[in-house]
Amino acid sequence: MSEQQYLVKYQAINFQQKLSLFTEQWQPKVIASINNHQVKIVKIEGDFQWHQHADSDESFFVLQGSLRLDFRDGSVQVNPGEMYVVPKGVEHKPYAATEVKMLLIVPNDVINTGDGETNNRTAPSNIWI
Amino acid sequence: MSEQQYLVKYQAINFQQKLSLFTEQWQPKVIASINNHQVKIVKIEGDFQWHQHADSDESFFVLQGSLRLDFRDGSVQVNPGEMYVVPKGVEHKPYAATEVKMLLIVPNDVINTGDGETNNRTAPSNIWI
Repeated sequence: MSEQQYLVKYQAINFQQKLSLFTEQWQPKVIASINNHQVKIVKIEGDFQWHQHADSDESFFVLQGSLRLDFRDGSVQVNPGEMYVVPKGVEHKPYAATEVKMLLIVPNDVINTGDGETNNRTAPSNIWI
Repeated sequence: MSEQQYLVKYQAINFQQKLSLFTEQWQPKVIASINNHQVKIVKIEGDFQWHQHADSDESFFVLQGSLRLDFRDGSVQVNPGEMYVVPKGVEHKPYAATEVKMLLIVPNDVINTGDGETNNRTAPSNIWI
């Protein structure tokens, strides 16, 4: 096998390289599949909408910036090198004062705006990058 | 609610803080649960054993150091800021020339030494830290 084929066959997924491929915010891109879950990479800034996922935990791994997750009775700040899991059924609202770059690990079929009707914040799912 | 209670109620999971709590190698500790998967943190150094997980992908997120994943026909180096998913059924062997600190995202019931008999490299599962 040539070196070129070898490099293509096994290649790590580099978060900075993936981040360099897009600029749009609030549009998660899939970078890996782990069983029934996907790893997505996303850039966000500003406020999202309150939502919940009745059947799924949602996890956030911050790469750059500082993510605030608001809950109905409090909030948590998640910084680079940190993660947070919002348990299923818990209403939450992500907020980023300045752009946050992060990973999401969520089930394959999750909808970013949560359960219920989709709206103009609903992102297409299953977009690989 | 007092500030103290507030801090306890919602707290990010900090990888460096978790790493500071143990020194032993090859003993993954659970730091979070995401649906039917767990996020584990582990320190490794040296060579592991060839193994596979017939029913599950295994994912590696490197925090510090450089992980080499050997396959029967090649290998991949995974550095900080990178991840790799070994697909189910693929034989692999982790190797770290110097200590590597990383996250694993694996199903709740996965055995670190893979399918088949357990041995002296088999770590207890479901140890939270």
